[in-house]
Amino acid sequence: MNKKQMVKALSLKTGMTLAQSNNYLNEVLGLISGTLKGGEDVFLRGFGSFMIKQRKPRRTMSLNTRKMITIPARKVVKFKTQILE
Amino acid sequence: MNKKQMVKALSLKTGMTLAQSNNYLNEVLGLISGTLKGGEDVFLRGFGSFMIKQRKPRRTMSLNTRKMITIPARKVVKFKTQILE
Repeated sequence: MNKKQMVKALSLKTGMTLAQSNNYLNEVLGLISGTLKGGEDVFLRGFGSFMIKQRKPRRTMSLNTRKMITIPARKVVKFKTQILE
Repeated sequence: MNKKQMVKALSLKTGMTLAQSNNYLNEVLGLISGTLKGGEDVFLRGFGSFMIKQRKPRRTMSLNTRKMITIPARKVVKFKTQILE
């Protein structure tokens, strides 16, 4: 299912127009994204948790050039689901 | 941020009541959950993808009892973010 299909399904379920449904979905996704970018985790009981983690830089050997390279520090988002419980 | 805080923030952003906002958020999360449980992935461009994967059963040694045990086949949800790109 992609976003367009989801907007349509939400519209059918809630009676909102497609434009309202699209706007609302964007607000939900924007709120989760913005919170994570701000360094805060998002806990949605019954659905799951989005957690932002900092990965340290690390040295490793490039598989292509066989030289040592540094993978820079970066942030990753981990999702832990509750929907299969 | 938890679900209650998110409902409040959504209500402020959209002008919906808290009850409406809570209802719509539940529809969004329920739609994603239901799609994944039905074995279908969910692609939300600009946000990320939820993918359902089947893990095969595997034999391993229990760290507690040192006996061989079988971890049964199970489903897991993987999330691939696009929000840090």
